[in-house]
Amino acid sequence: MNRTQDRPVTALEPHAHAWSPATARARFRAGLAGPTAGVAFGHTQANLISVPADWAYDVLLFCQRNPKPCPVLDVTDAGSPATVLAEGADLRTDLPRYRVWRDGELVDEPTDVTAYWRADLVSFLIGCSFTFESALTKAGVPLRHIEQDRNVPMYVTDRQCRPAGRLHGPMVVSMRPVQPEHLSAAIRETSLLPAVHGSPVHCGDPAVLGIEDLARPGFGEPVGLRPRDIPVFWACGVTPQAAVMASRPPFALTHAPGQMFLTDARDEQYRVA
Amino acid sequence: MNRTQDRPVTALEPHAHAWSPATARARFRAGLAGPTAGVAFGHTQANLISVPADWAYDVLLFCQRNPKPCPVLDVTDAGSPATVLAEGADLRTDLPRYRVWRDGELVDEPTDVTAYWRADLVSFLIGCSFTFESALTKAGVPLRHIEQDRNVPMYVTDRQCRPAGRLHGPMVVSMRPVQPEHLSAAIRETSLLPAVHGSPVHCGDPAVLGIEDLARPGFGEPVGLRPRDIPVFWACGVTPQAAVMASRPPFALTHAPGQMFLTDARDEQYRVA
Repeated sequence: MNRTQDRPVTALEPHAHAWSPATARARFRAGLAGPTAGVAFGHTQANLISVPADWAYDVLLFCQRNPKPCPVLDVTDAGSPATVLAEGADLRTDLPRYRVWRDGELVDEPTDVTAYWRADLVSFLIGCSFTFESALTKAGVPLRHIEQDRNVPMYVTDRQCRPAGRLHGPMVVSMRPVQPEHLSAAIRETSLLPAVHGSPVHCGDPAVLGIEDLARPGFGEPVGLRPRDIPVFWACGVTPQAAVMASRPPFALTHAPGQMFLTDARDEQYRVA
Repeated sequence: MNRTQDRPVTALEPHAHAWSPATARARFRAGLAGPTAGVAFGHTQANLISVPADWAYDVLLFCQRNPKPCPVLDVTDAGSPATVLAEGADLRTDLPRYRVWRDGELVDEPTDVTAYWRADLVSFLIGCSFTFESALTKAGVPLRHIEQDRNVPMYVTDRQCRPAGRLHGPMVVSMRPVQPEHLSAAIRETSLLPAVHGSPVHCGDPAVLGIEDLARPGFGEPVGLRPRDIPVFWACGVTPQAAVMASRPPFALTHAPGQMFLTDARDEQYRVA
C-alpha cells in the first residue's frame, strides 16, 4: 500500500468509528493503513516515537520541557513493544503506518516495523489531539476534517521548543476551523484535557505562528474553511518528528502523521474535572 | 539551627505571607529555616530532588509514571544550580532546609548544600500542594495547618508507585481536614491544578491508604481535626524521598519536608481552566 493512497480509515471502513481499540489494532496489524481520526471514537489515540536507549533521557526531558506539544502518556522499558495503555498490543505492528528515520532523514514508511526493531529501543506514547475530538463533538463543535474525510492538517511553526540535551526543533500544530459561536466551547473543552495538548496555542491569523499558507500543510491534508471559520491551532504530537528532523539522532521510529496508535484508554480518563 | 526547632516561617516572621519569592529565597539563603506553607502566598512552591546524572532518567521516568505525586515543574542541566522558574535563584542555598542522603540513609539536614554539591547533579523541581492552598483559600476552604501554625502532616501510604528502572517506593500523601460543606470546592479547585498534584487521592477513612494513626505523621506535624472534619489526602511531592529511602541511590539531595523552594511562578499559571 502506497502512502499517497492512504485515505482516512473511516472512509474505507464505514463502521471504524464503532470499532473497539483491539479491533482497530488487529486491522492495522493485518495491513490496513490510513489516518485514524474518528476511529474507535472516544478512545485515546497516541503519537509514537521510539529511540535508542542512549537518547531516551533527551526525549523524555524534551517532552517534560514542552508539555503542550509532547504530553507523555507512557514510556516503555527498553526493547519492549508492550504498553500499559493497551492490553496485548504490539507497538511494532499495531499502528497503521510508521516512519523510519536515520540521521534525521526519512528512509521508509512501512506498515510494520518488525524488521527495524532493536533491543535498545525505548518507545514514547504521546497524547494526540484526536483524543479531544470526542469532547469537541459532544460540545457541538463540528470537525471539518472528519466532515471532509481528510487527515487533519498540521503545520511547522516558527516557535522553537525548549531544547533538551541534543534535541531541539520547532513546534508543530494541528489546525481545526471553528465558527466564532463555538470558539468558547472549543477552548474550554480542550483546556480540561492538558494531557492531550490542552488549550489552543493560537486562534486566528496563521502568520502569527509563521504559517504562510493554510492550503499547504507540512503534514496531513488541507481542510476547507467555511465563511466565518476561525483557524484554531493546537500543539501537535508530530513535534517530536520535527525534532528528529532537526536534531538527527542516528535512528528513530515514529508513527506516520495522523496514523495513530489506538489505546484502550477512554478520552474521559484524561479529563481533569 | 536544629531541625526540631524548625517552626513555620509565618509564625517566626508575621509578614512572610506577603514576601516576594526573591525575598523569601534571600531570607532562606541567609539561614532562616522552617515550613513554608503560606510564605509568599500565591507563588508556586516546589519540592526538590537532586541526583547524579546516571540516575536522572530513572527519576524522570518515575515522575512520568507517577504524575499525581511527582508532577515535574522543571529539570536542570547537570551541575547547574539555576532554574527557569526563579530568576537568580541558587538551588544550593535558597531552600530553608535540605536533606542529604547516601545509599538511602539520611546523613545530614543542613540549611545549605554548597559543600555537598557535585558537578553531575541533576535537580528536579516537583509541584507542591502548598500551591493549591491559595486556590482553596479563595474558595473559602479553611486550612487547619495554617490556622494552627504547623507544618502540614504527611503520611507514607501502602500504595506502591509504578517503578521506573532502579526507583521504586510507596506514595506519600499530605492531609488537610475539610468540612463536608467545603468538600466539593476542595475537590473542584484542586482538580484544576493537575501540575501540583491535582484532585485528592482519597477522602475519609485513613485506613484505606494504610495509615494507622493521623496523630503520627511520617513527615510534618499532626494537625487537630474539628468535629465533622473529613481528612482529605492529596498525593505529595515527598514521594521521591520515600523512593530514595526504598531504592538507595548512592547519593541524593532533597528539600526537608514542608520546607520548599519558592519559585517566581504564580499559582494561577498552573490552573488549566
